[in-house]
Amino acid sequence: MSGGDEAERVRAFTAFRKRMNERILAEPNQVVRRFFALDTQAYQPGALDARTKELLGLVASLVLRCDDCIAYHVAQCREAGVGRDEMFEAFSVGLVVGGSIVIPHLRRAVDFLDQLEQGEAASPAVHDHG
Amino acid sequence: MSGGDEAERVRAFTAFRKRMNERILAEPNQVVRRFFALDTQAYQPGALDARTKELLGLVASLVLRCDDCIAYHVAQCREAGVGRDEMFEAFSVGLVVGGSIVIPHLRRAVDFLDQLEQGEAASPAVHDHG
Amino acid sequence: MSGGDEAERVRAFTAFRKRMNERILAEPNQVVRRFFALDTQAYQPGALDARTKELLGLVASLVLRCDDCIAYHVAQCREAGVGRDEMFEAFSVGLVVGGSIVIPHLRRAVDFLDQLEQGEAASPAVHDHG
Amino acid sequence: MSGGDEAERVRAFTAFRKRMNERILAEPNQVVRRFFALDTQAYQPGALDARTKELLGLVASLVLRCDDCIAYHVAQCREAGVGRDEMFEAFSVGLVVGGSIVIPHLRRAVDFLDQLEQGEAASPAVHDHG
Amino acid sequence: MSGGDEAERVRAFTAFRKRMNERILAEPNQVVRRFFALDTQAYQPGALDARTKELLGLVASLVLRCDDCIAYHVAQCREAGVGRDEMFEAFSVGLVVGGSIVIPHLRRAVDFLDQLEQGEAASPAVHDHG
Amino acid sequence: MSGGDEAERVRAFTAFRKRMNERILAEPNQVVRRFFALDTQAYQPGALDARTKELLGLVASLVLRCDDCIAYHVAQCREAGVGRDEMFEAFSVGLVVGGSIVIPHLRRAVDFLDQLEQGEAASPAVHDHG
Repeated sequence: MSGGDEAERVRAFTAFRKRMNERILAEPNQVVRRFFALDTQAYQPGALDARTKELLGLVASLVLRCDDCIAYHVAQCREAGVGRDEMFEAFSVGLVVGGSIVIPHLRRAVDFLDQLEQGEAASPAVHDHG
Repeated sequence: MSGGDEAERVRAFTAFRKRMNERILAEPNQVVRRFFALDTQAYQPGALDARTKELLGLVASLVLRCDDCIAYHVAQCREAGVGRDEMFEAFSVGLVVGGSIVIPHLRRAVDFLDQLEQGEAASPAVHDHG
Repeated sequence: MSGGDEAERVRAFTAFRKRMNERILAEPNQVVRRFFALDTQAYQPGALDARTKELLGLVASLVLRCDDCIAYHVAQCREAGVGRDEMFEAFSVGLVVGGSIVIPHLRRAVDFLDQLEQGEAASPAVHDHG
Repeated sequence: MSGGDEAERVRAFTAFRKRMNERILAEPNQVVRRFFALDTQAYQPGALDARTKELLGLVASLVLRCDDCIAYHVAQCREAGVGRDEMFEAFSVGLVVGGSIVIPHLRRAVDFLDQLEQGEAASPAVHDHG
Repeated sequence: MSGGDEAERVRAFTAFRKRMNERILAEPNQVVRRFFALDTQAYQPGALDARTKELLGLVASLVLRCDDCIAYHVAQCREAGVGRDEMFEAFSVGLVVGGSIVIPHLRRAVDFLDQLEQGEAASPAVHDHG
Repeated sequence: MSGGDEAERVRAFTAFRKRMNERILAEPNQVVRRFFALDTQAYQPGALDARTKELLGLVASLVLRCDDCIAYHVAQCREAGVGRDEMFEAFSVGLVVGGSIVIPHLRRAVDFLDQLEQGEAASPAVHDHG
């Protein structure tokens, strides 16, 4: 996997996510639509700032082992100003709580973070449901 | 991802599933073979009809977040006459019970359902263990 | 565990659930309150009837192995007119999808169902979030 | 919790398990009954001996975090001649794979093992579905 | 369940945890002992402060649905100065990510937090592995 | 998917795993590095031999449904001399404990095992955190 292929994969994934979110929200199912709205609202700054909430979302995604959610929150954390050393401390909590089964997801998370830091992957511009 | 690529991906997956099920059932391991038989039997109509049972399989697959199982039961539900609005209500129960971690799987489920409705993806003709 | 103790345990659990739901909904956290409202809305009859939705909630709870949620949906299914044979078919789907790890929860589910059928346990009168 | 109370708790649990298994197997649901039979068959000695299979069941139960299943397989391992140091090595694999979320279950597993070794808890005499 | 009984239950649980941790660490299994040490180390302040790390541990425990781990991190968060409104925002992220299956654990978490705030439950004085 | 493509996919995955493990271990995060060391240590022969421990890792990976971890332990089991019939008995325990949701992972595990047996896929030469 060269960096170029990886960046292409990220772009394809982001486009797929955007397209499917639009499809889903166009559906006349109020429970699903309200859930998506609630998912956005949960990360708005309040008593806890956005940065802390994104870190919470990241660790939750890590221990539940969802690659798409992890990538989404890694990008959101980065936009919120979370540094690489802070990101790795969050990873370490997720790894200890969730165990070695988390490792393959950690590898992909670090690869994604590397891509973001190299500017080869565009981070999603709007919250679109990890 | 164009529709054609997606349809090709579905065909490749269906062929892989068929080939591997045959490999597995050819193995002289009685527990595995009996498990596969039981998996088929569980969805046979009885006190509950096949349609309800496929919906149960769909929601179980959704909250356990298995894409292959979700795709399988979406196809089975469709063959059993479950409409798109009913499918989305089942999705909404799975989403509320399982949380936002289900969303990436929901996106792929809706994409798969779209493919089926457009006739671009052939639904599997026999029950072959989701 | 005599039947009397069990009935007492069910009453204590129902009272605890009611009290804590009130505590939680009294809290000024809009995301949590909206989530609870959405949880109620998800089981309202629509394209699928209430009975089917409660069965979906039951199987989702079974494969995710949450005793409180299972007991709640067993009671709701019963109120919606789901018979014992239908309940067991839903159990069988949950058991096959979720595996033997589900068995201890199945034992407690059947015990709870027995209590309900013997009228020794009062089913909760309102939807109060599994 | 004194040792005596703990032994009583184990006896109550064993009696409950036995009673509910009989209830469940008396039900005219063939899928559930076949599943229980398959669960017994899976641990019969074959290419792998019973002792190895019980260790596999133990670690699977540990990472899936089911106390009843863990207790059951700890007792079965002990009957199959698995020593305390071997048991702890199996625990250590489960702990590393499953993470710190396994720790509360490990505490209860070790407490249960201590009870068994002190002869204060009777191990179940027949395979009755963990 | 009166408050007094609950406080007693918390004391019994804390004593059990302490006793079993000592039992486990006395065992000559280096992997298990190193894992426990690593579990303590993961929450030490570094690039992220202790308070943020405890919140991460709390949300991870919530979505993985482990009552003992949740109670432990609620107590640790409280000692680290996390306020009730902040705690509820962390709960709300866990609830949205993990779904309604988290609700029974949320009820017990809020009950435990209430106890702590009423001073009826002593928070554990040392990190002893959630 | 022809055999050649599959072998290529395995090589790409092995290279990715190796590259990312090096990236992760180069990071100045002691908790993550110690976790990786512990993950290696857990499978060293002790009271249980390496072969039994790899089988434990395999079944744990199967019920937790992590394809990368399953593939890794299948390869390690093979190197430790585990035969195909023994591997299938381990699979059968994982299938019964974990349920039909395990089946898609079992298909990929058997496909991977077939590749290994045909010598079309190189097994990883060093333990690098499955």
